[in-house]
Amino acid sequence: MRKVFQAELHQIGEGLIEISSLVIDAIEKSTTAFAAADLQAAQEVIAADARIDFLQNDLDERAIDVLALQGPVASDLRMIVGSLRMSASLERMGDLARHISQLTRLRYPNNVIPAPLVETFAEMARQDIIIARKVSELLDSRDLELASEIAAAKTEINKLHKTVFSAMGAPDWAETPATTVDVTLASRYFERFGDHGVSVARKVSYLVTGEWQPEEFLAG
Amino acid sequence: MRKVFQAELHQIGEGLIEISSLVIDAIEKSTTAFAAADLQAAQEVIAADARIDFLQNDLDERAIDVLALQGPVASDLRMIVGSLRMSASLERMGDLARHISQLTRLRYPNNVIPAPLVETFAEMARQDIIIARKVSELLDSRDLELASEIAAAKTEINKLHKTVFSAMGAPDWAETPATTVDVTLASRYFERFGDHGVSVARKVSYLVTGEWQPEEFLAG
Repeated sequence: MRKVFQAELHQIGEGLIEISSLVIDAIEKSTTAFAAADLQAAQEVIAADARIDFLQNDLDERAIDVLALQGPVASDLRMIVGSLRMSASLERMGDLARHISQLTRLRYPNNVIPAPLVETFAEMARQDIIIARKVSELLDSRDLELASEIAAAKTEINKLHKTVFSAMGAPDWAETPATTVDVTLASRYFERFGDHGVSVARKVSYLVTGEWQPEEFLAG
Repeated sequence: MRKVFQAELHQIGEGLIEISSLVIDAIEKSTTAFAAADLQAAQEVIAADARIDFLQNDLDERAIDVLALQGPVASDLRMIVGSLRMSASLERMGDLARHISQLTRLRYPNNVIPAPLVETFAEMARQDIIIARKVSELLDSRDLELASEIAAAKTEINKLHKTVFSAMGAPDWAETPATTVDVTLASRYFERFGDHGVSVARKVSYLVTGEWQPEEFLAG
């Protein structure tokens, strides 16, 4: 019984890692398509999001079955409840990659981002990809050094997000209102992606240490 | 033992209703402050959000204790897992009300929304308040008629959200880029608030019927 239970717990952990690897694919492809106005790649991200949603539901159902059949307590229980929360964050990261691709599709064949902000968004994309990869590694290794690195990447994203808003508020901003709307939404999607990554990192830290990181950790 | 368990389940349900009533206060006050550029009321919403966060954490800890001590199965287990998810949605609704108030504070003493869109935002606010009230009623009564009404209110919000974006894309839109940014963010906050309300409604429907409503329900 105990052996079966440990195998089930292990499977739930593997399920989270599997979803996180799809989230890496989604953010890498969606940000590349976003930068290159690549319609086909954007469509692929949009289509692939259903798989993340399916895997999340499947993982959650398995977690609930384990709760029902094994009645876990203490750290095992917290691991399963934590998995339900982390799967929700990962699913939301997939949604945000999809939203980025939907903007790409909406403005195709044009680029969403005007020339002066292209490099800022490229850097935000790099930080989001770093976060996605480190979240996946963290789920696997539980090495809390990675959690600090995720928080540091989020701090960078916060700065870049502010840069974008400052640019739109500056007197020399000469873009159309439609572009201003797109840039606002895009910056928010890139920024929220990072938030959910930090949220997963906080949950892993909690499972490892038994203590919640302060809110400042979430704020990066 | 069974009696204690039922009392604990009941308390978790009551906890959700308590949080939902604070969410009603938050969205009512934040949207009123938003429309009137009322700094003090906006500050109150921002300050009050910590209470929602505290109650969510407290409720989640109690739910985990019940899982550990009672090892519930079947519908009781699903109710507790559902509570963890619903508390997360309610907490997020509180965050969005706070974001609306943060915009009010940022632009004070000016209004965030320019004259041509004031009525559209007022209507979105009314629909969000309807959603918050019906979510609270639904948590109490489990009357699924309310879930349909919540979905209908979200359909209205989606239409209003599109109206806002059309207005910003129209040739006669003459607002500053800063206002365009604010309107984009505000419309998204009002719209996401409704999404989370629908999400709670779907979860209650699932608990009552044992079946997930189709995605169209979420889409309104």
